[in-house]
Amino acid sequence: MTDTDRRPMGANAEGTLPRSFREFAVAWRSPIEEALESILPTADREPTRLHAAMRHAMFPGGKRFRPLLGLAGAAATGGDLRRALRPAAALELVHTYSLVHDDLPCMDDDDLRRGRPTCHIAFDEATAVLAGDALLTLAFEVVAEAGAEAVVALARGAGAAGMVGGQVFDLAAENAGAALGLDGLERIHDGKTGALIIASLEVGRVAGGAGGSEVSGLLAEYGALIGRAFQVADDCLDVTGTAAELGKTPGADQAHGKSTYPALLGLERSLEIARDLAERAGAVAGRIVELGGGLDGAESLLQDLALSVVSRKS
Amino acid sequence: MTDTDRRPMGANAEGTLPRSFREFAVAWRSPIEEALESILPTADREPTRLHAAMRHAMFPGGKRFRPLLGLAGAAATGGDLRRALRPAAALELVHTYSLVHDDLPCMDDDDLRRGRPTCHIAFDEATAVLAGDALLTLAFEVVAEAGAEAVVALARGAGAAGMVGGQVFDLAAENAGAALGLDGLERIHDGKTGALIIASLEVGRVAGGAGGSEVSGLLAEYGALIGRAFQVADDCLDVTGTAAELGKTPGADQAHGKSTYPALLGLERSLEIARDLAERAGAVAGRIVELGGGLDGAESLLQDLALSVVSRKS
Repeated sequence: MTDTDRRPMGANAEGTLPRSFREFAVAWRSPIEEALESILPTADREPTRLHAAMRHAMFPGGKRFRPLLGLAGAAATGGDLRRALRPAAALELVHTYSLVHDDLPCMDDDDLRRGRPTCHIAFDEATAVLAGDALLTLAFEVVAEAGAEAVVALARGAGAAGMVGGQVFDLAAENAGAALGLDGLERIHDGKTGALIIASLEVGRVAGGAGGSEVSGLLAEYGALIGRAFQVADDCLDVTGTAAELGKTPGADQAHGKSTYPALLGLERSLEIARDLAERAGAVAGRIVELGGGLDGAESLLQDLALSVVSRKS
Repeated sequence: MTDTDRRPMGANAEGTLPRSFREFAVAWRSPIEEALESILPTADREPTRLHAAMRHAMFPGGKRFRPLLGLAGAAATGGDLRRALRPAAALELVHTYSLVHDDLPCMDDDDLRRGRPTCHIAFDEATAVLAGDALLTLAFEVVAEAGAEAVVALARGAGAAGMVGGQVFDLAAENAGAALGLDGLERIHDGKTGALIIASLEVGRVAGGAGGSEVSGLLAEYGALIGRAFQVADDCLDVTGTAAELGKTPGADQAHGKSTYPALLGLERSLEIARDLAERAGAVAGRIVELGGGLDGAESLLQDLALSVVSRKS
């Protein structure tokens, strides 16, 4: 392997990272898809129906935001992004399993996702439950390539104290039907979204193999801020976005009487909060890269990542 | 710590293991329950409903066979059983999650398990799906204490190529309604039962910290044999057992027209096969303990474990 081969992908000839998160995402899109393609069992292998259902849920995918966060976590701590690639890609399996289970009739009962039939519609409920189970299990197998520390970070973010817990709070709030306060809303989103975002950064740090655990606290702080920003922006998009941009009908939250940031605080104040969260995350970025020994350009990358979370159109 | 404190629990004063699996199981019952009690989040912590559902599924438990297999795997390879205890106990979380999901209306639709309401009856379907998800995730967190090698062994045994795959084959066979041949039956049970048994022995080996991976192939051979023996015996018990022994109505398999070993081969021949499988497993035990450097008495223990699988009454 020459030195050129070993420079992080998505870095320019001088070995620095692209400063825009968008360029970073473009550079890593294909490697992430290729990694996922190699991780998922082919659908011609038995049990074919299970493998087909797992692939139906995974491809074509969305933004692959969590794998990108994993790679950003590696970059921010001076890690090797190629080495972090497979464990980072596996984070998408965890996100996807959660969507497959959340879409089930006994939960959100959604027939469509990204304009395609959800897993239990394209297959059946039993297969969807099992495909989700298999995706989660496979994620741990791949993340274990980065070592036990990465497994623990993922399990904590994905489990009862994290993502699964957030979904439980969300279901309880819907069943209660009562208006949710800001605290209740944040508890749901910190669990459903924030915990896996934090875990993604941490898995990337461990998988990249460079940054020590002393930077974990700062990564968690950064992840919590962009997780919140992500959700506030999401709620605002439901108000301001067009159907073409969102790929779904806007205004659905309001129509369903759902508790959202704009409903609780108004649109203006919500947009302000989202921008403030992104700025605070950007300020943490500098401390992460300094303490973690990040790659050249990593601070700008993390800052732009935080801004892109709130400025996105879909 | 004195030498006395460090001797394996369930060993006598000379530090050798009990030769009967029954005594071994009795000696380790409380430590396993205590480990599970400490692993499961308490039900007074948020999200309380999720934690309560996880505990409902876990307690009171059954024989805790997979944790015992994990400990046997440690003993057979000269490992430290106390060190293996928590990861071994976590294997029961994986078994339990599979029962919770298999009991769902979209799968086996069972209302009762061990005489108590199943998780989705005692709570609701959404909570049961999520409690299963959280149990599986927690299992990986705890098994990671034994290192990444244990995580990989568990993921392979529990995932699409193992336990989840076996359940998919089982559902497909039920939906097809056609009579299953011996090959089809074995494919289901090797996946549903055998794969996690093999993984349990291997997790125990890694968690015990002594046996090298050169013995893994033999452990897998032993596990596959007792997995098969377990299932053949199970099918026979459905014919020969009493309701009092089984805690459920005997003859249910036949009433449901289910493919079983007795249905395919007759009861006499099935009992013969079960004994033969147990004997073959016993023969592998000696090679495991020799190559793995097992504790005193480990060969007899593994032999008796294999026999107890076919001589059990429930």
